[in-house]
Amino acid sequence: MIIETPDHDSDLVDLDVKQVEGLIWAYRARAIDLKKDPRFRYILIFKNQGESAGASLEHSHSQLIATPIVPKRVMEEVEGAGKYYEYKERCIFCDAIKQEIADDERVIVQNDAFVSLEPFAPRFPFETWILPKKHLPAFETIKKDEIPLLASILLETLRRLAKALSNPPYNYVLHTSPVDDGYADEYHWHIEIMPKLTRVAGFEWGTGFYINPTTPEDAAAYLKEIEI
Amino acid sequence: MIIETPDHDSDLVDLDVKQVEGLIWAYRARAIDLKKDPRFRYILIFKNQGESAGASLEHSHSQLIATPIVPKRVMEEVEGAGKYYEYKERCIFCDAIKQEIADDERVIVQNDAFVSLEPFAPRFPFETWILPKKHLPAFETIKKDEIPLLASILLETLRRLAKALSNPPYNYVLHTSPVDDGYADEYHWHIEIMPKLTRVAGFEWGTGFYINPTTPEDAAAYLKEIEI
Repeated sequence: MIIETPDHDSDLVDLDVKQVEGLIWAYRARAIDLKKDPRFRYILIFKNQGESAGASLEHSHSQLIATPIVPKRVMEEVEGAGKYYEYKERCIFCDAIKQEIADDERVIVQNDAFVSLEPFAPRFPFETWILPKKHLPAFETIKKDEIPLLASILLETLRRLAKALSNPPYNYVLHTSPVDDGYADEYHWHIEIMPKLTRVAGFEWGTGFYINPTTPEDAAAYLKEIEI
Repeated sequence: MIIETPDHDSDLVDLDVKQVEGLIWAYRARAIDLKKDPRFRYILIFKNQGESAGASLEHSHSQLIATPIVPKRVMEEVEGAGKYYEYKERCIFCDAIKQEIADDERVIVQNDAFVSLEPFAPRFPFETWILPKKHLPAFETIKKDEIPLLASILLETLRRLAKALSNPPYNYVLHTSPVDDGYADEYHWHIEIMPKLTRVAGFEWGTGFYINPTTPEDAAAYLKEIEI
Protein backbone atom coordinates (compact mmCIF):
# COMPACT_ATOMS: atom_id res chain seq x y z
CA MET A 1 0.00 0.00 0.00
CA ILE A 2 1.34 3.41 -0.95
CA ILE A 3 -0.48 6.33 0.68
CA GLU A 4 -0.63 9.17 -1.81
CA THR A 5 -1.42 12.07 0.49
CA PRO A 6 -1.81 12.78 4.21
CA ASP A 7 -5.13 14.50 3.42
CA HIS A 8 -8.02 12.05 3.75
CA ASP A 9 -10.30 14.03 1.42
CA SER A 10 -7.93 14.55 -1.52
CA ASP A 11 -7.90 12.29 -4.55
CA LEU A 12 -4.85 11.82 -6.73
CA VAL A 13 -6.11 14.48 -9.17
CA ASP A 14 -6.23 17.04 -6.34
CA LEU A 15 -2.50 16.74 -5.64
CA ASP A 16 0.15 18.99 -7.17
CA VAL A 17 2.89 17.76 -9.50
CA LYS A 18 5.47 17.65 -6.69
CA GLN A 19 3.29 15.26 -4.69
CA VAL A 20 2.77 13.00 -7.71
CA GLU A 21 6.55 13.02 -8.25
CA GLY A 22 6.85 11.77 -4.68
CA LEU A 23 4.41 8.96 -5.48
CA ILE A 24 6.45 7.90 -8.53
CA TRP A 25 9.65 7.99 -6.45
CA ALA A 26 7.92 5.68 -3.96
CA TYR A 27 6.83 3.27 -6.76
CA ARG A 28 10.42 3.27 -8.05
CA ALA A 29 12.08 2.77 -4.65
CA ARG A 30 9.81 -0.16 -3.73
CA ALA A 31 10.23 -1.79 -7.15
CA ILE A 32 14.03 -1.54 -6.99
CA ASP A 33 14.10 -2.98 -3.51
CA LEU A 34 11.70 -5.88 -4.20
CA LYS A 35 13.56 -6.82 -7.39
CA LYS A 36 16.47 -7.85 -5.16
CA ASP A 37 14.38 -10.58 -3.55
CA PRO A 38 14.92 -13.73 -5.65
CA ARG A 39 11.48 -15.12 -4.77
CA PHE A 40 9.73 -12.52 -6.92
CA ARG A 41 9.13 -12.75 -10.66
CA TYR A 42 6.95 -9.68 -11.11
CA ILE A 43 6.28 -6.35 -9.38
CA LEU A 44 2.71 -5.22 -9.96
CA ILE A 45 1.84 -1.56 -9.27
CA PHE A 46 -1.78 -0.46 -9.61
CA LYS A 47 -4.42 1.89 -8.32
CA ASN A 48 -8.16 1.42 -7.75
CA GLN A 49 -10.03 4.72 -7.50
CA GLY A 50 -13.64 4.66 -6.34
CA GLU A 51 -15.72 1.93 -4.77
CA SER A 52 -17.07 0.47 -7.99
CA ALA A 53 -13.50 0.16 -9.31
CA GLY A 54 -12.74 -2.01 -6.29
CA ALA A 55 -11.18 0.51 -3.89
CA SER A 56 -11.87 -0.84 -0.43
CA LEU A 57 -10.37 2.15 1.41
CA GLU A 58 -11.47 5.74 0.99
CA HIS A 59 -8.09 7.37 1.58
CA SER A 60 -6.26 7.86 -1.74
CA HIS A 61 -3.72 5.10 -2.24
CA SER A 62 -1.90 2.89 -4.73
CA GLN A 63 -0.98 -0.77 -4.29
CA LEU A 64 2.10 -2.79 -5.01
CA ILE A 65 2.11 -6.59 -5.01
CA ALA A 66 5.18 -8.69 -5.80
CA THR A 67 4.26 -12.09 -7.21
CA PRO A 68 6.28 -15.35 -7.18
CA ILE A 69 5.22 -16.10 -10.78
CA VAL A 70 4.79 -13.90 -13.83
CA PRO A 71 1.03 -13.19 -14.06
CA LYS A 72 -0.96 -14.67 -16.95
CA ARG A 73 -1.90 -11.32 -18.50
CA VAL A 74 1.68 -10.06 -18.31
CA MET A 75 2.96 -13.20 -20.06
CA GLU A 76 0.35 -12.79 -22.80
CA GLU A 77 1.47 -9.22 -23.46
CA VAL A 78 5.17 -10.06 -23.28
CA GLU A 79 4.72 -13.04 -25.61
CA GLY A 80 2.65 -10.98 -28.05
CA ALA A 81 5.38 -8.33 -28.12
CA GLY A 82 7.95 -11.10 -28.52
CA LYS A 83 6.22 -12.45 -31.63
CA TYR A 84 6.19 -9.01 -33.21
CA TYR A 85 9.87 -8.59 -32.38
CA GLU A 86 10.74 -11.95 -33.95
CA TYR A 87 8.94 -10.91 -37.11
CA LYS A 88 10.03 -7.25 -37.40
CA GLU A 89 13.06 -6.99 -35.11
CA ARG A 90 11.46 -3.89 -33.64
CA CYS A 91 9.52 -3.13 -30.47
CA ILE A 92 5.77 -3.06 -31.16
CA PHE A 93 5.24 -0.27 -28.63
CA CYS A 94 7.95 1.92 -30.24
CA ASP A 95 6.35 1.35 -33.65
CA ALA A 96 2.86 2.17 -32.34
CA ILE A 97 4.06 5.33 -30.56
CA LYS A 98 5.80 6.61 -33.71
CA GLN A 99 2.70 5.99 -35.78
CA GLU A 100 0.31 7.46 -33.21
CA ILE A 101 2.36 10.66 -32.90
CA ALA A 102 2.50 10.98 -36.70
CA ASP A 103 -1.27 10.34 -37.07
CA ASP A 104 -2.15 12.56 -34.12
CA GLU A 105 -5.70 11.20 -34.02
CA ARG A 106 -5.55 9.40 -30.70
CA VAL A 107 -2.85 11.37 -28.83
CA ILE A 108 -4.02 13.39 -25.83
CA VAL A 109 -0.90 14.99 -24.34
CA GLN A 110 2.82 14.62 -24.86
CA ASN A 111 6.05 16.02 -23.47
CA ASP A 112 9.75 15.34 -24.11
CA ALA A 113 9.71 11.91 -22.51
CA PHE A 114 6.10 10.63 -22.52
CA VAL A 115 2.95 10.41 -24.58
CA SER A 116 -0.60 9.82 -23.40
CA LEU A 117 -3.01 8.34 -25.94
CA GLU A 118 -6.12 6.28 -26.58
CA PRO A 119 -4.90 2.88 -27.81
CA PHE A 120 -5.92 1.82 -31.33
CA ALA A 121 -8.17 -1.02 -30.09
CA PRO A 122 -9.29 -0.05 -26.57
CA ARG A 123 -11.27 -2.53 -24.47
CA PHE A 124 -13.12 0.25 -22.64
CA PRO A 125 -14.46 3.71 -23.50
CA PHE A 126 -11.77 6.30 -22.65
CA GLU A 127 -9.14 3.65 -21.93
CA THR A 128 -5.92 5.70 -21.92
CA TRP A 129 -2.28 4.66 -21.96
CA ILE A 130 0.83 6.61 -20.96
CA LEU A 131 4.08 5.40 -22.52
CA PRO A 132 7.72 6.55 -22.44
CA LYS A 133 8.75 7.66 -25.94
CA LYS A 134 12.15 6.01 -25.59
CA HIS A 135 12.41 2.22 -25.58
CA LEU A 136 12.49 1.27 -21.89
CA PRO A 137 11.43 -2.24 -20.84
CA ALA A 138 11.33 -1.75 -17.05
CA PHE A 139 9.63 1.09 -15.19
CA GLU A 140 12.13 1.30 -12.35
CA THR A 141 14.93 2.35 -14.74
CA ILE A 142 13.13 5.71 -15.08
CA LYS A 143 15.66 8.57 -14.85
CA LYS A 144 15.57 11.28 -12.20
CA ASP A 145 14.80 13.99 -14.76
CA GLU A 146 11.99 11.91 -16.32
CA ILE A 147 10.05 11.65 -13.06
CA PRO A 148 8.65 15.24 -13.15
CA LEU A 149 7.60 14.63 -16.77
CA LEU A 150 5.78 11.41 -15.85
CA ALA A 151 4.16 13.11 -12.84
CA SER A 152 2.87 15.98 -14.97
CA ILE A 153 1.53 13.83 -17.83
CA LEU A 154 -0.12 11.38 -15.39
CA LEU A 155 -1.73 14.24 -13.49
CA GLU A 156 -2.88 16.04 -16.62
CA THR A 157 -4.29 12.83 -18.13
CA LEU A 158 -6.17 11.89 -14.94
CA ARG A 159 -7.49 15.46 -14.63
CA ARG A 160 -8.76 15.43 -18.21
CA LEU A 161 -10.49 12.10 -17.57
CA ALA A 162 -11.94 13.39 -14.28
CA LYS A 163 -13.26 16.55 -15.93
CA ALA A 164 -14.59 14.81 -19.05
CA LEU A 165 -16.28 11.96 -17.19
CA SER A 166 -17.25 13.64 -13.87
CA ASN A 167 -14.69 11.90 -11.65
CA PRO A 168 -15.25 8.36 -12.83
CA PRO A 169 -14.08 5.39 -10.80
CA TYR A 170 -11.01 3.95 -12.52
CA ASN A 171 -8.17 1.46 -12.31
CA TYR A 172 -4.69 2.01 -13.56
CA VAL A 173 -2.06 -0.67 -13.90
CA LEU A 174 1.64 -0.13 -14.49
CA HIS A 175 2.75 -2.72 -17.06
CA THR A 176 6.46 -3.41 -16.76
CA SER A 177 8.87 -6.13 -17.76
CA PRO A 178 9.05 -9.25 -15.55
CA VAL A 179 11.94 -9.23 -13.05
CA ASP A 180 13.92 -11.56 -15.32
CA ASP A 181 15.61 -9.19 -17.76
CA GLY A 182 15.12 -11.45 -20.78
CA TYR A 183 12.55 -9.13 -22.39
CA ALA A 184 14.70 -6.02 -22.93
CA ASP A 185 14.32 -5.88 -26.71
CA GLU A 186 10.62 -6.50 -27.12
CA TYR A 187 8.92 -5.05 -24.05
CA HIS A 188 8.17 -1.40 -23.27
CA TRP A 189 6.69 -0.31 -19.93
CA HIS A 190 3.55 1.82 -19.79
CA ILE A 191 0.54 2.71 -17.67
CA GLU A 192 -2.97 1.58 -18.67
CA ILE A 193 -5.80 3.70 -17.25
CA MET A 194 -9.28 2.10 -17.39
CA PRO A 195 -12.21 4.33 -16.40
CA LYS A 196 -15.09 2.22 -15.14
CA LEU A 197 -17.93 3.28 -17.44
CA THR A 198 -19.20 -0.03 -18.81
CA ARG A 199 -19.78 -3.36 -17.10
CA VAL A 200 -17.97 -6.59 -17.74
CA ALA A 201 -20.76 -9.12 -18.31
CA GLY A 202 -21.44 -12.56 -19.78
CA PHE A 203 -20.12 -11.71 -23.23
CA GLU A 204 -16.78 -10.51 -21.88
CA TRP A 205 -16.46 -13.44 -19.43
CA GLY A 206 -17.35 -15.89 -22.16
CA THR A 207 -15.06 -14.56 -24.84
CA GLY A 208 -12.28 -12.39 -23.42
CA PHE A 209 -13.44 -9.81 -25.98
CA TYR A 210 -14.79 -6.40 -24.99
CA ILE A 211 -17.71 -4.44 -26.35
CA ASN A 212 -16.73 -0.76 -26.50
CA PRO A 213 -19.29 1.76 -27.76
CA THR A 214 -16.84 4.71 -27.93
CA THR A 215 -14.20 5.07 -30.64
CA PRO A 216 -10.71 6.02 -29.43
CA GLU A 217 -10.71 8.93 -31.91
CA ASP A 218 -13.86 10.42 -30.35
CA ALA A 219 -12.51 9.91 -26.85
CA ALA A 220 -9.16 11.51 -27.76
CA ALA A 221 -10.77 14.53 -29.40
CA TYR A 222 -12.95 15.07 -26.35
CA LEU A 223 -10.12 14.65 -23.83
CA LYS A 224 -7.82 16.96 -25.79
CA GLU A 225 -10.32 19.77 -26.07
CA ILE A 226 -11.70 19.80 -22.57
CA GLU A 227 -10.49 22.69 -20.41
CA ILE A 228 -8.90 21.73 -17.12
CA MET B 1 -31.94 -12.47 -27.26
CA ILE B 2 -34.01 -15.26 -25.73
CA ILE B 3 -36.97 -14.08 -23.64
CA GLU B 4 -37.37 -16.45 -20.71
CA THR B 5 -40.92 -15.63 -19.66
CA PRO B 6 -43.86 -13.50 -20.80
CA ASP B 7 -44.09 -12.13 -17.23
CA HIS B 8 -42.10 -8.90 -16.86
CA ASP B 9 -41.65 -9.31 -13.11
CA SER B 10 -40.44 -12.90 -12.96
CA ASP B 11 -36.77 -13.81 -12.80
CA LEU B 12 -35.43 -17.13 -14.03
CA VAL B 13 -35.57 -18.57 -10.50
CA ASP B 14 -39.30 -17.80 -10.32
CA LEU B 15 -40.10 -20.04 -13.31
CA ASP B 16 -41.11 -23.67 -13.04
CA VAL B 17 -39.08 -26.57 -14.44
CA LYS B 18 -41.24 -26.81 -17.56
CA GLN B 19 -40.51 -23.19 -18.46
CA VAL B 20 -36.76 -23.70 -17.94
CA GLU B 21 -36.97 -26.79 -20.17
CA GLY B 22 -38.46 -24.52 -22.81
CA LEU B 23 -35.52 -22.15 -22.41
CA ILE B 24 -33.03 -25.00 -22.90
CA TRP B 25 -34.93 -26.18 -25.97
CA ALA B 26 -34.63 -22.65 -27.33
CA TYR B 27 -30.87 -22.56 -26.64
CA ARG B 28 -30.54 -25.90 -28.40
CA ALA B 29 -32.65 -25.00 -31.42
CA ARG B 30 -30.80 -21.73 -32.02
CA ALA B 31 -27.39 -23.40 -31.58
CA ILE B 32 -28.24 -26.18 -34.05
CA ASP B 33 -29.51 -23.70 -36.59
CA LEU B 34 -26.59 -21.26 -36.32
CA LYS B 35 -24.05 -24.07 -36.56
CA LYS B 36 -25.19 -24.57 -40.16
CA ASP B 37 -23.96 -21.11 -41.10
CA PRO B 38 -20.35 -21.55 -42.25
CA ARG B 39 -19.40 -18.01 -41.17
CA PHE B 40 -19.62 -18.91 -37.49
CA ARG B 41 -16.89 -20.52 -35.43
CA TYR B 42 -18.51 -20.31 -32.01
CA ILE B 43 -22.00 -20.07 -30.50
CA LEU B 44 -21.91 -18.21 -27.20
CA ILE B 45 -24.92 -18.53 -24.87
CA PHE B 46 -24.97 -16.48 -21.69
CA LYS B 47 -27.14 -14.67 -19.22
CA ASN B 48 -26.63 -11.44 -17.28
CA GLN B 49 -28.94 -11.15 -14.27
CA GLY B 50 -29.12 -7.80 -12.46
CA GLU B 51 -27.87 -4.39 -13.41
CA SER B 52 -24.45 -4.69 -11.79
CA ALA B 53 -23.88 -7.94 -13.70
CA GLY B 54 -24.42 -5.97 -16.91
CA ALA B 55 -28.09 -6.68 -17.66
CA SER B 56 -29.29 -3.72 -19.66
CA LEU B 57 -32.93 -4.87 -19.83
CA GLU B 58 -35.14 -5.62 -16.86
CA HIS B 59 -37.21 -8.37 -18.44
CA SER B 60 -35.64 -11.77 -17.76
CA HIS B 61 -33.65 -12.90 -20.79
CA SER B 62 -30.64 -14.84 -22.04
CA GLN B 63 -28.38 -13.93 -24.94
CA LEU B 64 -26.88 -15.85 -27.81
CA ILE B 65 -24.10 -14.45 -29.98
CA ALA B 66 -22.49 -16.37 -32.83
CA THR B 67 -18.92 -15.23 -33.48
CA PRO B 68 -16.88 -15.49 -36.69
CA ILE B 69 -13.79 -16.51 -34.70
CA VAL B 70 -13.29 -18.75 -31.68
CA PRO B 71 -13.11 -16.40 -28.67
CA LYS B 72 -9.81 -16.03 -26.80
CA ARG B 73 -11.09 -17.46 -23.50
CA VAL B 74 -12.67 -20.44 -25.26
CA MET B 75 -9.39 -21.21 -27.06
CA GLU B 76 -7.50 -21.01 -23.77
CA GLU B 77 -9.83 -23.53 -22.15
CA VAL B 78 -9.88 -25.83 -25.18
CA GLU B 79 -6.09 -25.73 -25.45
CA GLY B 80 -5.68 -26.38 -21.72
CA ALA B 81 -7.98 -29.39 -22.00
CA GLY B 82 -6.06 -30.48 -25.09
CA LYS B 83 -2.75 -30.47 -23.21
CA TYR B 84 -4.23 -32.64 -20.47
CA TYR B 85 -5.61 -35.02 -23.08
CA GLU B 86 -2.24 -35.30 -24.80
CA TYR B 87 -0.64 -36.18 -21.48
CA LYS B 88 -3.29 -38.50 -20.00
CA GLU B 89 -5.47 -39.52 -22.96
CA ARG B 90 -8.46 -38.65 -20.83
CA CYS B 91 -10.83 -35.69 -20.64
CA ILE B 92 -9.87 -33.35 -17.79
CA PHE B 93 -13.52 -32.57 -17.06
CA CYS B 94 -14.46 -36.28 -16.83
CA ASP B 95 -11.53 -36.83 -14.44
CA ALA B 96 -12.48 -33.84 -12.31
CA ILE B 97 -16.16 -34.87 -12.15
CA LYS B 98 -15.26 -38.39 -11.05
CA GLN B 99 -12.96 -37.08 -8.34
CA GLU B 100 -15.42 -34.41 -7.15
CA ILE B 101 -18.26 -36.92 -6.83
CA ALA B 102 -16.00 -39.31 -4.91
CA ASP B 103 -14.71 -36.52 -2.59
CA ASP B 104 -18.17 -34.99 -2.17
CA GLU B 105 -16.72 -31.84 -0.64
CA ARG B 106 -17.62 -29.38 -3.38
CA VAL B 107 -20.70 -31.03 -4.93
CA ILE B 108 -24.00 -29.19 -4.44
CA VAL B 109 -26.62 -31.22 -6.33
CA GLN B 110 -26.56 -34.11 -8.75
CA ASN B 111 -28.98 -36.20 -10.76
CA ASP B 112 -28.62 -39.03 -13.30
CA ALA B 113 -27.15 -36.83 -16.00
CA PHE B 114 -25.68 -33.71 -14.35
CA VAL B 115 -23.67 -32.48 -11.39
CA SER B 116 -23.51 -28.99 -9.94
CA LEU B 117 -20.37 -28.13 -7.95
CA GLU B 118 -17.97 -25.46 -6.77
CA PRO B 119 -14.85 -25.82 -8.93
CA PHE B 120 -11.59 -26.69 -7.17
CA ALA B 121 -10.02 -23.27 -7.88
CA PRO B 122 -12.89 -20.80 -8.29
CA ARG B 123 -12.18 -17.23 -9.39
CA PHE B 124 -15.15 -15.86 -7.47
CA PRO B 125 -16.93 -16.65 -4.19
CA PHE B 126 -19.78 -19.09 -4.90
CA GLU B 127 -18.70 -19.62 -8.51
CA THR B 128 -20.68 -22.73 -9.49
CA TRP B 129 -20.44 -25.05 -12.46
CA ILE B 130 -22.98 -27.47 -13.90
CA LEU B 131 -21.56 -30.32 -15.99
CA PRO B 132 -22.98 -33.36 -17.78
CA LYS B 133 -21.63 -36.52 -16.15
CA LYS B 134 -21.17 -38.20 -19.52
CA HIS B 135 -18.44 -37.01 -21.86
CA LEU B 136 -20.19 -34.59 -24.23
CA PRO B 137 -18.17 -31.92 -26.05
CA ALA B 138 -21.01 -29.87 -27.52
CA PHE B 139 -24.09 -28.61 -25.67
CA GLU B 140 -26.49 -28.92 -28.59
CA THR B 141 -26.08 -32.71 -28.68
CA ILE B 142 -28.07 -32.82 -25.42
CA LYS B 143 -30.70 -35.59 -25.57
CA LYS B 144 -34.41 -35.02 -25.24
CA ASP B 145 -34.59 -36.89 -21.93
CA GLU B 146 -31.62 -34.97 -20.51
CA ILE B 147 -33.30 -31.61 -20.95
CA PRO B 148 -35.65 -31.94 -17.92
CA LEU B 149 -32.65 -33.01 -15.83
CA LEU B 150 -30.64 -29.97 -16.92
CA ALA B 151 -33.62 -27.69 -16.31
CA SER B 152 -34.13 -29.02 -12.79
CA ILE B 153 -30.45 -28.86 -11.75
CA LEU B 154 -30.05 -25.36 -13.24
CA LEU B 155 -33.16 -24.15 -11.46
CA GLU B 156 -32.23 -25.75 -8.14
CA THR B 157 -28.68 -24.39 -8.31
CA LEU B 158 -29.83 -20.87 -9.14
CA ARG B 159 -32.45 -21.03 -6.38
CA ARG B 160 -29.86 -22.13 -3.83
CA LEU B 161 -27.59 -19.27 -4.89
CA ALA B 162 -30.50 -16.82 -4.78
CA LYS B 163 -31.53 -17.93 -1.30
CA ALA B 164 -27.98 -18.11 0.09
CA LEU B 165 -26.89 -14.76 -1.29
CA SER B 166 -30.18 -12.79 -1.32
CA ASN B 167 -30.77 -12.74 -5.07
CA PRO B 168 -27.31 -11.69 -6.15
CA PRO B 169 -26.64 -10.31 -9.61
CA TYR B 170 -24.89 -12.99 -11.63
CA ASN B 171 -23.63 -14.04 -15.04
CA TYR B 172 -23.72 -17.50 -16.43
CA VAL B 173 -21.92 -18.65 -19.55
CA LEU B 174 -22.47 -21.89 -21.40
CA HIS B 175 -19.04 -23.21 -22.37
CA THR B 176 -19.27 -25.50 -25.37
CA SER B 177 -16.98 -26.85 -28.05
CA PRO B 178 -16.17 -24.57 -31.02
CA VAL B 179 -18.29 -25.27 -34.13
CA ASP B 180 -15.36 -27.13 -35.68
CA ASP B 181 -15.73 -30.65 -34.27
CA GLY B 182 -12.00 -31.18 -33.77
CA TYR B 183 -12.25 -31.10 -29.97
CA ALA B 184 -14.49 -34.12 -29.36
CA ASP B 185 -12.02 -36.05 -27.21
CA GLU B 186 -10.76 -33.34 -24.91
CA TYR B 187 -13.61 -30.88 -24.44
CA HIS B 188 -16.69 -31.22 -22.23
CA TRP B 189 -19.47 -28.65 -22.25
CA HIS B 190 -20.64 -27.03 -19.01
CA ILE B 191 -22.27 -23.95 -17.53
CA GLU B 192 -20.26 -21.52 -15.36
CA ILE B 193 -22.34 -19.41 -12.96
CA MET B 194 -20.57 -16.38 -11.48
CA PRO B 195 -22.44 -14.47 -8.77
CA LYS B 196 -21.28 -10.86 -8.66
CA LEU B 197 -20.11 -10.48 -5.06
CA THR B 198 -16.60 -9.12 -5.44
CA ARG B 199 -15.20 -6.49 -7.79
CA VAL B 200 -12.68 -6.99 -10.53
CA ALA B 201 -10.03 -4.34 -9.82
CA GLY B 202 -6.44 -3.40 -10.64
CA PHE B 203 -4.96 -6.65 -9.35
CA GLU B 204 -7.23 -8.77 -11.54
CA TRP B 205 -6.75 -6.52 -14.59
CA GLY B 206 -3.00 -6.52 -14.11
CA THR B 207 -2.55 -10.23 -13.57
CA GLY B 208 -5.50 -12.26 -14.88
CA PHE B 209 -5.52 -13.82 -11.39
CA TYR B 210 -8.48 -13.52 -9.02
CA ILE B 211 -8.58 -12.87 -5.29
CA ASN B 212 -11.30 -15.05 -3.78
CA PRO B 213 -11.94 -14.82 -0.03
CA THR B 214 -14.35 -17.80 0.10
CA THR B 215 -13.21 -21.41 -0.14
CA PRO B 216 -15.22 -23.64 -2.50
CA GLU B 217 -15.71 -26.13 0.36
CA ASP B 218 -17.39 -23.48 2.56
CA ALA B 219 -19.52 -22.26 -0.33
CA ALA B 220 -20.58 -25.84 -1.21
CA ALA B 221 -21.48 -26.72 2.38
CA TYR B 222 -23.58 -23.58 2.66
CA LEU B 223 -25.36 -24.06 -0.66
CA LYS B 224 -26.09 -27.71 0.07
CA GLU B 225 -27.62 -27.07 3.48
CA ILE B 226 -29.74 -24.07 2.72
CA GLU B 227 -33.46 -24.79 2.54
CA ILE B 228 -35.19 -23.73 -0.64
